[in-house]
Amino acid sequence: MAVTLAGNACIGQSGGPTVVINQSLVGVIEEARKHKEIKKLLGARHGTRGIMKEDFIDLFKIPGRRLELVAATPAAALGSVRHKPREEEFAVMLDVFKKHNIRYYFYIGGDDSAKSADIITGMAKIANYEMRVVHIPKTIDNNLMESDHSPGFGSAARFVACAVRGDDLDNRSLPGIKVNVIMGRDAGWLTAATVLARRKEGDGPHLIYLPEMPFTIEKFIADVKEAYAKYGRCVVCVSEGIRDPQGKLWGAIAGRQVAEALKDEYKDLFGKLEMDAFGHLQLSGTGVLADFLTGRIKEGIDVTRVRGDTFGYLQRSFVGFASKVDAREARQVGRVAVKCAVKGLDGSVAIKRRAGKKYKAYFELVALKLVAGKNKEVSKEFICPSGNDICPSFRDYGLPLVGDLPETALLEE
Amino acid sequence: MAVTLAGNACIGQSGGPTVVINQSLVGVIEEARKHKEIKKLLGARHGTRGIMKEDFIDLFKIPGRRLELVAATPAAALGSVRHKPREEEFAVMLDVFKKHNIRYYFYIGGDDSAKSADIITGMAKIANYEMRVVHIPKTIDNNLMESDHSPGFGSAARFVACAVRGDDLDNRSLPGIKVNVIMGRDAGWLTAATVLARRKEGDGPHLIYLPEMPFTIEKFIADVKEAYAKYGRCVVCVSEGIRDPQGKLWGAIAGRQVAEALKDEYKDLFGKLEMDAFGHLQLSGTGVLADFLTGRIKEGIDVTRVRGDTFGYLQRSFVGFASKVDAREARQVGRVAVKCAVKGLDGSVAIKRRAGKKYKAYFELVALKLVAGKNKEVSKEFICPSGNDICPSFRDYGLPLVGDLPETALLEE
Repeated sequence: MAVTLAGNACIGQSGGPTVVINQSLVGVIEEARKHKEIKKLLGARHGTRGIMKEDFIDLFKIPGRRLELVAATPAAALGSVRHKPREEEFAVMLDVFKKHNIRYYFYIGGDDSAKSADIITGMAKIANYEMRVVHIPKTIDNNLMESDHSPGFGSAARFVACAVRGDDLDNRSLPGIKVNVIMGRDAGWLTAATVLARRKEGDGPHLIYLPEMPFTIEKFIADVKEAYAKYGRCVVCVSEGIRDPQGKLWGAIAGRQVAEALKDEYKDLFGKLEMDAFGHLQLSGTGVLADFLTGRIKEGIDVTRVRGDTFGYLQRSFVGFASKVDAREARQVGRVAVKCAVKGLDGSVAIKRRAGKKYKAYFELVALKLVAGKNKEVSKEFICPSGNDICPSFRDYGLPLVGDLPETALLEE
Repeated sequence: MAVTLAGNACIGQSGGPTVVINQSLVGVIEEARKHKEIKKLLGARHGTRGIMKEDFIDLFKIPGRRLELVAATPAAALGSVRHKPREEEFAVMLDVFKKHNIRYYFYIGGDDSAKSADIITGMAKIANYEMRVVHIPKTIDNNLMESDHSPGFGSAARFVACAVRGDDLDNRSLPGIKVNVIMGRDAGWLTAATVLARRKEGDGPHLIYLPEMPFTIEKFIADVKEAYAKYGRCVVCVSEGIRDPQGKLWGAIAGRQVAEALKDEYKDLFGKLEMDAFGHLQLSGTGVLADFLTGRIKEGIDVTRVRGDTFGYLQRSFVGFASKVDAREARQVGRVAVKCAVKGLDGSVAIKRRAGKKYKAYFELVALKLVAGKNKEVSKEFICPSGNDICPSFRDYGLPLVGDLPETALLEE
């Protein structure tokens, strides 16, 4: 058995928030309180940036009633960060950890945060500073390796499924072609979840496109034409991360075309391309891809009513609509992280699924390196061979994470 | 007392759907069943278009269990229509009414539908064909004259309030400038409702712009700069219907600039401007206004993180998130319409509010002419003199319609 390591603990939140990210924070606070090895739990404001600036909040001092409300509140309560620390910044962080006798470090985030956690683990070892580091998963993108699914995904999937169900009913009542752009730069899990909106043949989404399958305008227009001819309307769900056969993001192509086409005086007004600290292109926070795709449809198909929506930040932040399973599991991964850490373990908490008909999850600590900076794509088994739809088997995977959807009905069916 | 008019009834749904529009439909079906004067209730598919084509569904044949599910289902179950009938088409409709012995006509829609209903009423009178016509209000825009509020508004307002609450939390965790574009071409009620997201000083939305107040880019940039300096971040909610001091829609200006600036080969790819049958410019289904405004901010203010979202069709169609009060009242206006019609009255059902602290609504039948083609703007008393915010008094007006919002909390406040 590992020797008990006593000292303080630190926790941070990183990357794009989810509606259940604070469930994990509160899970850590609750569990940490139970372990006398953990004297203090310091919350770092805005993640790694808060650690470097020693900008902490004493989390054991927050009353329980408030914690419950915070748990149900979307978006990182400690503040988040998109900064990728440089080597010398990691050294500063380690110094801060030493100074505050921080022996436990919990970092809630995606694959980039797992990487951060892995670097810190390595530096602490080299410096011979004993500390435990546990990465707590969070991402609406659902793209973490070693996990069946990630906390945050179920709620975002619930949101997009209900949004697309409603949008499909709207489109049924005023028929036309509708394009919805869904978050998920590198993996199409969230876009795939829009298939849950479909109850039966004829329901939208009629076409679904993921970053995992190359996307060409020619095939897209042909697909839309075919669906429109068949149903007299067409609802399309497209990931913001769709790429051309050379791997170029269509969001970037669309943005660049607008930027280049605009006169000098308006050059920066639209489609300005932005890279984040991790070198990822900014795809959210603009409607340019949806407008580009509806433009191509208007050009290619003779239909009066063509509309585009970009679901945007609502997918990861909408209040009061979390998936119950997702909220519960997000709380549990926080608790598990603390339990593992006080047992002397480092790693990333992964959610696994038991075999069997009834949904049941369990948790495992996996090596940080298996998650750090990696991307789990949508399994090929879930993507229809046509490349423009999701297989019915996805329902068995996704529905337990999302929970039952509200019932809807047509007058005749 | 009026002589009983026996015959069949017809109902249609028109314009942009809401999430409670089928509550009104089911309210009409329920109530109509109780009155032996009404032999049959014919649902016209896609409104006036269905009447002209005699495309009907016998609504008394739909079983009760299904009706309850339909009531809770967003978007016109009968199908909607945006077509504005010409005079000869109204004549065709009247012929169809005569042919099917339709003596009661219920039309669910906004101010354009009230106009349709008014025209039919007049033509029936001239033709000496006795029939009752009642307009049943519906619009997320909340812009119907004579009403305290319109069915559909409360649910859309609930959606945008929760969306902006979440978006504000997201912006708090990753600070920057965020622009949200909200539906409502001619009246800013729905955009005004975003103020309900604000719990206390410092919460967003920090700036709110309605079509009722002229909007200039210079003032906008100055406002955003000031808010950003004060809060270190800024969440802005803007109506899609904001106009320049000459009354020109900024959505149209933005669309035209892109369209003009684009090279010939891409000319139709973005910002193609579309008019609907009523001569209204299409403002929804494109992200061009949000992209235009974020572009102006990037040009005018030195801030890294500037994002725009267009809430789009989700505002009027999202499944499973209706306001309870709104759903109940939408059902009631349907019932009231039938009761009035069998009493021998024509008109438009209006929701009124009793004076007093506790919210209580009642219903009145008002003359169609008072509602037809008219637009109720946001009362000046609700708009702050600065022109960029909504007064706290709006809370008393709006919150009862929306219902209590989910509780959220910060770690420290």
